[in-house]
Amino acid sequence: MAKLTKGARETALSELKGWAFDEATEAIRRDFKFEDFAEAFAFMTRVALLAHAADHHPEWSNVYNEVSITLTTHDEGGVTDKDVQLAMQINDLT
Amino acid sequence: MAKLTKGARETALSELKGWAFDEATEAIRRDFKFEDFAEAFAFMTRVALLAHAADHHPEWSNVYNEVSITLTTHDEGGVTDKDVQLAMQINDLT
Repeated sequence: MAKLTKGARETALSELKGWAFDEATEAIRRDFKFEDFAEAFAFMTRVALLAHAADHHPEWSNVYNEVSITLTTHDEGGVTDKDVQLAMQINDLT
Repeated sequence: MAKLTKGARETALSELKGWAFDEATEAIRRDFKFEDFAEAFAFMTRVALLAHAADHHPEWSNVYNEVSITLTTHDEGGVTDKDVQLAMQINDLT
């Protein structure tokens, strides 16, 4: 699972609605907004199940109805296909 | 539910194992560490139930087995008894 080349990453991101690459952290991030805390946490629970199944975990935060998710592969020092796959699965939840 | 006086806050904190007051954000914070992601998220789920029941919500983040929780009462511009009560309930989970 190697870090994606710039070209591969940009191609992947172009198909990943809502996610942006952050140069400084070599990670992709998306912010989500829900009706309220219960809806936000319901979403987080579904993301947790996906992450657990993939054995690939987000760096994420929640404040009331907002959830921010950051994905990167620390072992590879950047974004890999693992991150793209998880981001696609997360998008499918919304 | 008024913001606690400095004295009341310090008395409350002295009984709240692991929580520290941050002057800059007028909030209390505690970091938790678990065996793995599944344990961390199980804890978060229980915290979410407490927060939902109290209608008082944390600002929190998770990275793999680590969970950081920040509590403050924005409407009062600082720490209130709501935060102390929720922190106590969270401590009871551990």
